[in-house]
Amino acid sequence: MSLPQVPFDDRGLAYGDGLFETVLVRYGEPLLWEYHMQRLRRGCQVLDMAEPSRESLDATLEEVQGELAVLKLVVTRGSGGRGYARPAIAQPRLLSHWTPFSTSPQRWREGVRVRVCHLRLGRQPRLAGIKHLNRLENVLARGEWDRVDIDEGLMADQNGQMIEATSMNLFWERNGSFFTSELDTCGVAGTLREALLADNRVSIAPLDVADIGGVDSLWLGNSIQGLWPVAELLDADNVPCRRWPSAQRNRELQTAAHQLLGYPVIATDV
Amino acid sequence: MSLPQVPFDDRGLAYGDGLFETVLVRYGEPLLWEYHMQRLRRGCQVLDMAEPSRESLDATLEEVQGELAVLKLVVTRGSGGRGYARPAIAQPRLLSHWTPFSTSPQRWREGVRVRVCHLRLGRQPRLAGIKHLNRLENVLARGEWDRVDIDEGLMADQNGQMIEATSMNLFWERNGSFFTSELDTCGVAGTLREALLADNRVSIAPLDVADIGGVDSLWLGNSIQGLWPVAELLDADNVPCRRWPSAQRNRELQTAAHQLLGYPVIATDV
Repeated sequence: MSLPQVPFDDRGLAYGDGLFETVLVRYGEPLLWEYHMQRLRRGCQVLDMAEPSRESLDATLEEVQGELAVLKLVVTRGSGGRGYARPAIAQPRLLSHWTPFSTSPQRWREGVRVRVCHLRLGRQPRLAGIKHLNRLENVLARGEWDRVDIDEGLMADQNGQMIEATSMNLFWERNGSFFTSELDTCGVAGTLREALLADNRVSIAPLDVADIGGVDSLWLGNSIQGLWPVAELLDADNVPCRRWPSAQRNRELQTAAHQLLGYPVIATDV
Repeated sequence: MSLPQVPFDDRGLAYGDGLFETVLVRYGEPLLWEYHMQRLRRGCQVLDMAEPSRESLDATLEEVQGELAVLKLVVTRGSGGRGYARPAIAQPRLLSHWTPFSTSPQRWREGVRVRVCHLRLGRQPRLAGIKHLNRLENVLARGEWDRVDIDEGLMADQNGQMIEATSMNLFWERNGSFFTSELDTCGVAGTLREALLADNRVSIAPLDVADIGGVDSLWLGNSIQGLWPVAELLDADNVPCRRWPSAQRNRELQTAAHQLLGYPVIATDV
């Protein structure tokens, strides 16, 4: 399977002027496809960019094979001249590529170890929520650790509000209810998060970085991996600062998430 | 002249994980080349990316033809797998392409009309100053107007401090001295600005967006265009709010800038 290419003057390459989606596909059937299409549409509106036709987007699914795969879509504004001004007639470019995927059942069951990142996300309301191609903050944050036993890094914004992990949304539990961060100044509004919000499984609430160790349980999720409980939290210097034991974990949100993705319901350890 | 291409898995395309430079070249000789090389080196350090060899960078000049040209260099981290983690062995990709360039003598002489942009730059100290490929803020700001008689847009940060124009640095005069903005939380540190700072032609000072109409003269500059005086300032709703008449304009900084770029000294109108 040869990789698609873009030319030097593609604005996705030049300025990150475009969007992407990563979609879980099971036996050719995409999960949360309408949520992905909705976010892509919203991104095109925010960037004032023509949308690829629904037919061309649907057609990217036809090539995907195997039991479980990740389909990545990239939509750029297309080719343009030198300078930031948008080309008068821009022809958006839709690229797609898929790779086989395997789940991490042990992470679903036993949970993950995560750290708080030094990097604080800049606040830019005009770009918040959409999955655009300007992702250097995520790259820098992910570059803060290389220990293979650390699975993700949590990012706060410049005001110390918890936003997300480098490639997953953040969920937490207090008194039996589940919450997720407001994403109106930065962060990516994941499709799994959107679906859980639409189903009233979670509510939006603030969470200060100083209070993160005080929640009853902490979870990371996206539309590819499902929902991981956080077993251990490290601070930015990789010093352990909180453990959430696996026994009696409330798996209500994980169950709802996994039903949306066709993933198994994980039994609570007793 | 065919355009270079990058594959789908190039991290410059995927995440804007890379840097660029635009260099003025006259009869094959680059202007401010060492400043461009220095900024590229600093960018590679900030992104923790291997630098292309100096030989490969110098070699991009060989293809450039004509009296005046703009050489654009793009350096990406190279190809990588899915996800934000940097590839264990990344092979940076250096791409270059040049186009003929013509100066705007009327803008040098009579000045330009600029507006203040609605968009406020997000503050991200970790990425400030370098010329990385995450430029959606510039694209959105430039998209705020399409009147051809508006030449540039000025951007403040989220705190209301003036930072830069969409593709030029900002300079202003008070009591015969010239100033430029601090760029430690956002903005691109232009090579012309660096050279003028190194030559003590300008000093760094703050400028609140509310005070911009109160400066003695306002200038925009970069290493391609030289220095433009601002003749008229419009607010974000395109309402004129200040004119700086051309007569008796202090052209000291413009003269210094143009000497660095081999551009003509512009006579003061009397």
